[in-house]
Amino acid sequence: MAAGGYYGAMEAWQAELLDECRVARLGTIAADGRPRLVPVCYALVDGEIVIAVDEKPKRGGKLARVRDIERDPRATLLVDRYDEDWVRLAWVRFDCRATVEPAGDRLPGALVALRARYPQYAAMALEGLPVIVLLPEGVVGWRWGAQS
Amino acid sequence: MAAGGYYGAMEAWQAELLDECRVARLGTIAADGRPRLVPVCYALVDGEIVIAVDEKPKRGGKLARVRDIERDPRATLLVDRYDEDWVRLAWVRFDCRATVEPAGDRLPGALVALRARYPQYAAMALEGLPVIVLLPEGVVGWRWGAQS
Repeated sequence: MAAGGYYGAMEAWQAELLDECRVARLGTIAADGRPRLVPVCYALVDGEIVIAVDEKPKRGGKLARVRDIERDPRATLLVDRYDEDWVRLAWVRFDCRATVEPAGDRLPGALVALRARYPQYAAMALEGLPVIVLLPEGVVGWRWGAQS
Repeated sequence: MAAGGYYGAMEAWQAELLDECRVARLGTIAADGRPRLVPVCYALVDGEIVIAVDEKPKRGGKLARVRDIERDPRATLLVDRYDEDWVRLAWVRFDCRATVEPAGDRLPGALVALRARYPQYAAMALEGLPVIVLLPEGVVGWRWGAQS
């Protein structure tokens, strides 16, 4: 994970949680202002968080989350750990500026990082698809008995 | 789970996922319009979804999610299943009307349901605290190879 930006400002446990989680939840702003939440797989590349628009499996058309970001680039990403032992509960939330990038210069690095984290992507053709890139602008964390 | 409302409209797998998940993610609308996401524990009571404002542990003051709901009652709840075998991926999202209810008539039933699902709540004093009540107004689900 690159230092700098909000990654540099994160506490160690927050960075560890972001690394450890296999799925995050992305919140975008729907046309009517309502939050739209979806689970997403993600990877870290040079201080940004990348998400494949893979559509697992594809269903055609532009995804609603992509339309949301094109309309309003503010997006929120939440990673959290649930455990029946609630002293282990923790979450970290990133307020982000999101962009939807075509399969251009940034894609190769994003795909390398995504495939390194998710072997499932090895067999999927992502090269022609855009990626969502999240630039964190703020971070809030909480864990049992502590907060930042 | 009570029939009727959007529960009645849910497909069987969606109702099962809502029952099976131990944690959901709640999206509310922050003052600046940005989605605010937090993980929440929840239970079902008479076609509504209840969430304790327990603050695990309490940190004083009114929670931001409560202020959000008082400002704009539109909230979104997402439950999802992640599995390394991606054919098991699934999520269900509820667009809801949220209210924050004081420790009044609805609280006893909510606490019974929450404590039935979460033994962790047995030792926590929730009686004096409000509950968030979500009335689903719409539901969208997705799973690998199917959608509704």
